[in-house]
Amino acid sequence: MTWRASVLTLFPAMFPGPLGLSLAGRALETGAWSLDVGNIRDFAADRHRTVDDTPFGGGAGMVLRPDIVDAAVASVDDGRPLVCLTPRGRRLAQADVRRFAAAPGVVLLCGRYEGIDQRVIDARFMEEISIGDYVLSGGELAALVLLDATVRLLPGVMGSADSAAEESFSAGLLEYPQYTRPAEWQGRRVPEVLLSGHHGAVAAWRQAEAERITRERRPDLWAAFASPEHAASAAS
Amino acid sequence: MTWRASVLTLFPAMFPGPLGLSLAGRALETGAWSLDVGNIRDFAADRHRTVDDTPFGGGAGMVLRPDIVDAAVASVDDGRPLVCLTPRGRRLAQADVRRFAAAPGVVLLCGRYEGIDQRVIDARFMEEISIGDYVLSGGELAALVLLDATVRLLPGVMGSADSAAEESFSAGLLEYPQYTRPAEWQGRRVPEVLLSGHHGAVAAWRQAEAERITRERRPDLWAAFASPEHAASAAS
Repeated sequence: MTWRASVLTLFPAMFPGPLGLSLAGRALETGAWSLDVGNIRDFAADRHRTVDDTPFGGGAGMVLRPDIVDAAVASVDDGRPLVCLTPRGRRLAQADVRRFAAAPGVVLLCGRYEGIDQRVIDARFMEEISIGDYVLSGGELAALVLLDATVRLLPGVMGSADSAAEESFSAGLLEYPQYTRPAEWQGRRVPEVLLSGHHGAVAAWRQAEAERITRERRPDLWAAFASPEHAASAAS
Repeated sequence: MTWRASVLTLFPAMFPGPLGLSLAGRALETGAWSLDVGNIRDFAADRHRTVDDTPFGGGAGMVLRPDIVDAAVASVDDGRPLVCLTPRGRRLAQADVRRFAAAPGVVLLCGRYEGIDQRVIDARFMEEISIGDYVLSGGELAALVLLDATVRLLPGVMGSADSAAEESFSAGLLEYPQYTRPAEWQGRRVPEVLLSGHHGAVAAWRQAEAERITRERRPDLWAAFASPEHAASAAS
């Protein structure tokens, strides 16, 4: 059965956007996934098609009304994971991506930064997810990111090359550096070990580099990798 | 002077994509920023327009050649921050976004997951940046995310409403929940304090909610917020 993404947004023209090209675009054409996009504004009840109102308690910006959002969600909700993209959410991780890829699809609600009335988020048991600690102009790019990461894991979408990359990242370390031809470029030579043909030495060098880079750039990942719990689970 | 983004990619048709609409799209039309997109393939030297080769030391996937990438970078490099979007990078944070917005622009190199030859990254002193702990099919969506976050901070792009939102996120806590009309919906009432008209009580409730949500969803942010260092800098 085709994996189905439903997106609810105030900017339907942003979809499929970049997902209409490359890996995700080909997968869309071959039917590995499908995308339907609903305009939240179509669920407004007045002739001005109003979807938001000022926040109770005061403050800047506008908040999406619970009744309008609920009607939009009701139009596509069928038990698939229901995700609201918002900077208030938990951070998206590859484990979430794998879970979404294993589901029949997802429903993605694109928030605006000022927010969505919390009651409809609670009433619909939405997962609130953020793609990172920066502020976007809306949830649309976050939805595109979530979909790109998920679609590449669907059966038949990736080649084995990408699969391997995924495995590496999943191991909890950043990737080792890569080198290709020419072997010497602007006086810079590829590390000799990579030209040695000694598979064991190459593997050891790559592991050491992955650990070094992770320590330097991501002390948080390194701490998790080096913890006794990780060592125990990796050994089991 | 117009803030200038140069993007180097194998998929130029992905740009401006979603950034041609909404806030970023209007700012592009009014000249608050400009975007030029270079196709890395245009810098290939052979008639097959080859840009990549197999990795030294073996392994799946292809690696972008240093000479081709260097020629592409040379075509736009003029001292602006030079960023390579890659899952191996430091994680993008709002402080980076503010730094990019304060620069004359950025040059963004969109990696493929298998990678770019490390020598050109080193030789050009590129910043390696990741938008989060998930694997994308390429750096293009990461570049769009970085640009969206940055463009909204450029002078004249945002209204005051969005500014306020930014301030809140920058304080190191997730946002408190928002509510709007109707005051009662499906038997769910807006928290009474927000209807009280008592500004001090509203502010105290919102602060308590922001702290509660941050504690529950982002223990890492909470730990940073609650640390003595933060308390000292907040007081100064």
